[in-house]
Amino acid sequence: MNSKKTLPSRTRSTMASTPALAPTATQPILISADLSGRSRVTIQRVSPLLDGGRFPVKAIPGDVIAVEADVVSDGHDYLAARLLYKHADDTDYREMAMTLLVNDRWGASFVVEKTGRYDYTIEAWVDHLATWQHEIHLKVADGQRITSELLAGAQLIDGMLARAEAFTTASAPKPKGRKKAEEDTHPDVRALREMGNLFRDGAKPTAIDQYNEAVSLAESEQFIFYTKAYPERQHPARYTPVLGVEVDRAKAGFSTWYCLFPRSASREEGRHGTFRDVEGLLPRIADMGFDVLYLPPIHPIGTAHRKGKNNSVACEPGEPGVPYGIGSEAGGHDAIHSELGTVDDFKHLIAIAKNYGMEVAMDLAIQVSPDHPWAKDHPEWFKKRPDGTIQYAENPPKKYQDIYPVYFETDDWQNLWLEMRRVLLTWGSWGVRMIRVDNPHTKPFAFWEWIIAEVKKEYPDMLFLSEAFTKPKVMQELAKRGFAQSYTYYTWRNTKAELEEYMTELTQKTAPDSMAYYFRPNFWPTTHDINPYSLHSGHEPQFLIRYFMAATLSSNYGIYGPSFELMEHERFPNKEEYLNSEKYEIRLWDWDRTNKLTYLIGLTNRIRHENAALQQTNNIRFCAVNDDAIMAYLKTTGDNRLLIVVNTDAYSRRAGMVQVPIWELGIGHDQPYQVRDLLTNAQYTWQGDRNYVELDPYVLPMHLFKIEV
Amino acid sequence: MNSKKTLPSRTRSTMASTPALAPTATQPILISADLSGRSRVTIQRVSPLLDGGRFPVKAIPGDVIAVEADVVSDGHDYLAARLLYKHADDTDYREMAMTLLVNDRWGASFVVEKTGRYDYTIEAWVDHLATWQHEIHLKVADGQRITSELLAGAQLIDGMLARAEAFTTASAPKPKGRKKAEEDTHPDVRALREMGNLFRDGAKPTAIDQYNEAVSLAESEQFIFYTKAYPERQHPARYTPVLGVEVDRAKAGFSTWYCLFPRSASREEGRHGTFRDVEGLLPRIADMGFDVLYLPPIHPIGTAHRKGKNNSVACEPGEPGVPYGIGSEAGGHDAIHSELGTVDDFKHLIAIAKNYGMEVAMDLAIQVSPDHPWAKDHPEWFKKRPDGTIQYAENPPKKYQDIYPVYFETDDWQNLWLEMRRVLLTWGSWGVRMIRVDNPHTKPFAFWEWIIAEVKKEYPDMLFLSEAFTKPKVMQELAKRGFAQSYTYYTWRNTKAELEEYMTELTQKTAPDSMAYYFRPNFWPTTHDINPYSLHSGHEPQFLIRYFMAATLSSNYGIYGPSFELMEHERFPNKEEYLNSEKYEIRLWDWDRTNKLTYLIGLTNRIRHENAALQQTNNIRFCAVNDDAIMAYLKTTGDNRLLIVVNTDAYSRRAGMVQVPIWELGIGHDQPYQVRDLLTNAQYTWQGDRNYVELDPYVLPMHLFKIEV
Repeated sequence: MNSKKTLPSRTRSTMASTPALAPTATQPILISADLSGRSRVTIQRVSPLLDGGRFPVKAIPGDVIAVEADVVSDGHDYLAARLLYKHADDTDYREMAMTLLVNDRWGASFVVEKTGRYDYTIEAWVDHLATWQHEIHLKVADGQRITSELLAGAQLIDGMLARAEAFTTASAPKPKGRKKAEEDTHPDVRALREMGNLFRDGAKPTAIDQYNEAVSLAESEQFIFYTKAYPERQHPARYTPVLGVEVDRAKAGFSTWYCLFPRSASREEGRHGTFRDVEGLLPRIADMGFDVLYLPPIHPIGTAHRKGKNNSVACEPGEPGVPYGIGSEAGGHDAIHSELGTVDDFKHLIAIAKNYGMEVAMDLAIQVSPDHPWAKDHPEWFKKRPDGTIQYAENPPKKYQDIYPVYFETDDWQNLWLEMRRVLLTWGSWGVRMIRVDNPHTKPFAFWEWIIAEVKKEYPDMLFLSEAFTKPKVMQELAKRGFAQSYTYYTWRNTKAELEEYMTELTQKTAPDSMAYYFRPNFWPTTHDINPYSLHSGHEPQFLIRYFMAATLSSNYGIYGPSFELMEHERFPNKEEYLNSEKYEIRLWDWDRTNKLTYLIGLTNRIRHENAALQQTNNIRFCAVNDDAIMAYLKTTGDNRLLIVVNTDAYSRRAGMVQVPIWELGIGHDQPYQVRDLLTNAQYTWQGDRNYVELDPYVLPMHLFKIEV
Repeated sequence: MNSKKTLPSRTRSTMASTPALAPTATQPILISADLSGRSRVTIQRVSPLLDGGRFPVKAIPGDVIAVEADVVSDGHDYLAARLLYKHADDTDYREMAMTLLVNDRWGASFVVEKTGRYDYTIEAWVDHLATWQHEIHLKVADGQRITSELLAGAQLIDGMLARAEAFTTASAPKPKGRKKAEEDTHPDVRALREMGNLFRDGAKPTAIDQYNEAVSLAESEQFIFYTKAYPERQHPARYTPVLGVEVDRAKAGFSTWYCLFPRSASREEGRHGTFRDVEGLLPRIADMGFDVLYLPPIHPIGTAHRKGKNNSVACEPGEPGVPYGIGSEAGGHDAIHSELGTVDDFKHLIAIAKNYGMEVAMDLAIQVSPDHPWAKDHPEWFKKRPDGTIQYAENPPKKYQDIYPVYFETDDWQNLWLEMRRVLLTWGSWGVRMIRVDNPHTKPFAFWEWIIAEVKKEYPDMLFLSEAFTKPKVMQELAKRGFAQSYTYYTWRNTKAELEEYMTELTQKTAPDSMAYYFRPNFWPTTHDINPYSLHSGHEPQFLIRYFMAATLSSNYGIYGPSFELMEHERFPNKEEYLNSEKYEIRLWDWDRTNKLTYLIGLTNRIRHENAALQQTNNIRFCAVNDDAIMAYLKTTGDNRLLIVVNTDAYSRRAGMVQVPIWELGIGHDQPYQVRDLLTNAQYTWQGDRNYVELDPYVLPMHLFKIEV
């Protein structure tokens, strides 16, 4: 037999994805006096792993899910391990062969191709085929005659043959009423039959030629091919539980948010802004390069205990109230504040925004004004004081009499959850696919997990942004429960050291449950709630720096406009809040003003759009710089390689040597390379790993270099 | 009401262990539209945690099990968490209040008091009582009148009262037929009733005195006491799975092994040693301070393909064979080699050894000679070659025709397991309670987990030592499956850097699944299989050093005698094995010889016996020394504080400054302290953290200081 001739032409590289075998029955790994006693392999310390597999990791289509595990057995046998994965729409697992990395650690990866839930797990077994081949090799090298081993090999081939027949019969088109001819037999089946015969022939005492041919075949790559294609998985171990990947649409990984109060969209003093006014602002916002327009609550505002300008408890007649004091006789979370427009007007805004490449994100604040319909129709959803009145919000000793918090421990919690579901499905029916959630950390985790899953059943492309500025583990838990993106501490991370440490925590996969697996940061230099100390100066270079880092450190970021780009900075005394905040009054903005910051925003967003490396967050790598204010980071995606250098000191010119890891970029030490600043088009020829940079905050405190070899 | 008078006298410190409430029904933490929707707390990242809770951690009676977890909830409420634990014999959990450590990390610990299995888990809930008290405090400090809050507090007290009544009724002796008088009421119940009335009275508009008294009580420690004793655990979260501690008897943590071949126990040339001869050696072994006498296999030895001297395949007539070639017509693993004696002789040895404070450990090698009864009665327990013959052991290209390995993948594996169980229970019936297992890593993990558990059902004090010199994760897995102790890489760790790194890996609890939680090292400088390179010189100081480090780094250690203490070192060419190994021949030893090493052994074992700090392994802390060969380590247990200093360079005098962490020992920088060398009785007065040491290997290459303030 000329094995080369009869073997099929498929190559080893196609093997991993062929054939997509049906999953075998799960074998319990736990010891008991049942059939598992012969399962010799154990699979442990799988990574990624969030809380023992309780939560899925997150991805977007095209992401590579790299999985590792300890695969351990007794004895000296070879092992085989497969990564099994499937989309929720699929019935059968696909398989990817895992590779032994080092010290019983195995790895493999798969690509998630579409949105939805993927399941994956690992199966491993003692690979008698590979063990047999390895022992053959040692004996042949030792000059031993291996006839008995060839007979054992023939038995192993019989097993492969049976599996090949079963598989190829199941997957082949049925013969159409005519006699099954030899040419209908799958080439693998034919080849395996011949191999088995050759092994048996070769084991006969007199068959010298066949013996040599059989030995040669036993040691061949072809033989390995069949052992991988039709593996003998006796007593396999299957990892439990099945693990998950939640694949969101691409926007979850790359988005550029612009927040505005629609009531301030009017260009006339004293006139309440409308959705139509917002439509008029879309060209400006689109020009700056934003693709999400986020609006604080747009529902009717209560009048009971309404707050006035600057959060005053004394509200003057005619003051518009706080959009977060949701609900009046006109309706609650499923109604639209009439001064902004109608539901149809809102849908119209969504449609027009779409023309500008922008989505509209709503704001979910689960709290009500005392005038909200729920307060009358569902008083049991609120906590009562001993006198039977509803308890208003408190943060002792402070009191917020204009707000009733919802009481999630109510006996009627199931109806409360269902009502919230109804509200969000209503928003979905309006065309909303992004929801920013106000203070999710004051509502139960279980509620979020449930409602996000419920809403995604109807609107799979719905994305939730968690506005939880709270303790790290609470923020992490909300992300695990289903929030696609999360606000972060970026707003308060200013120094190079702080930023590098925080970015490392957010983006590096150093543990099986690292945040990079499930927490998508969304960086905001300011919000309508937060006017951080770092910007109270109104110092223009500081605004440029804070903006630029948000936009280049994180693929998801947002600004609160036009306050931010107009460098609004007056603070409420002794607070990180704005004076004359839009939360309490309508502002008349100069929507036509441009400045150095608006220029930088437009330019940076265009560069983000054109450079894939800025469309991911976890692809960051910090570079050493011998200056404690100059921060440099490399972001690479495929061929797109960017080196970003920022002077975090807004008041001093800084200079230093940036160490570019050219050894990782395939650039030799004697090889010149070009870096072109995409902000200024300035171009430099560098060589070696250490290069001089100098940044004057009063000129431009950053470089955004594209590396071109 | 004078609350101080009516409150019971028990103090807060007793509270944690009272009352031992019955466990509540497990609340699933998973989200679903059932009653768990109001469970607001999540418990994660528990430590210790071996493979998601799949395996128990290990302990001995008296050990403290320190448990930590992330306990996280939404909102700003106070939380309460309890560590729940019970022995397998108990029906109810006991509880220990957990303490918030930092950043949502909580901790508590409990002491395991007796051998067997303990279960533990964590329960946590939103602590409305503590939240209420905290808010009261803020409002009172703000000068607010809190009548409404007092009424809310009265409702909370009603809840505590109901729980106090239920608990005290259940636990109190029943009244004997007479009217239940006020004095029969539990003081807690009386106190809570009065507190509730006081709160309600104090909330009345005119009751100024009662108001003040109620407010004062609400802020009091007494109130806190009741909130902890009768907590309101609404919608608690319970961690799953339940975690385990396997508590072995004290010997598992502190043991001193001596291995000898009983056939070499004879003092006459040419006479086969017997158990009676071994009895004659016990005084010497006991004098040296050993408490475990471990014997390689004592079963009949096969004759088929028997190996001769130095592992020769040509066995001369009269050669005794290899004790690991187990089984002949005289019997197998449940029989005794007749030249050693009878079963009764063996039992007699066990009894006499006990008089000397010594246990006898047997050797379990699951492999057989071709003459073993299993080979005839259970040929299906062995792998067949294609010609139907049983396959002998191979490590290709090497062949071991004298040994049949047992085939654990046999279809008849269940009977094989049962037979092994029968054998070990037979050993148990002889009085054996320690078993050293030869090459456990070539038999399935599942088998070990099953058989160790099975044997411990009959003999709970049985201890298994794993002789697995193999890959780290395989050794770890065997320990997880139930081996009480494990051989280690100590035999090949020679330099200071290697030893410090390895000891850190073995003893430090740096991760939830650190080896310190479940892997008990047993250090052997040599074994009858391993004559390490480091001792081929026969250099006496090297033997002293290798011995002393084993005995002071690890609370469990052993030597292979008398080979080791007589500094036997001739090697088989190019191997780490002995020339003229006792495995293949009977040796005639000079059992009366003493030397510097035997003196050091006896002395060190006496010091180990007298100093609790040497009876643990994980209590080690390395000290900085400015010499790369001098290694210093502190071992402390309570008041017993030892500083051990070893010169790992057996050829050069070394000197350096040892840094003693006196700040951890409560010794001030200006406070002199005594260090007394327990080996030489030399005494030094030291002061400050840096002190000079100098060690000459030709004199004595170690100090064993006791620190005395």
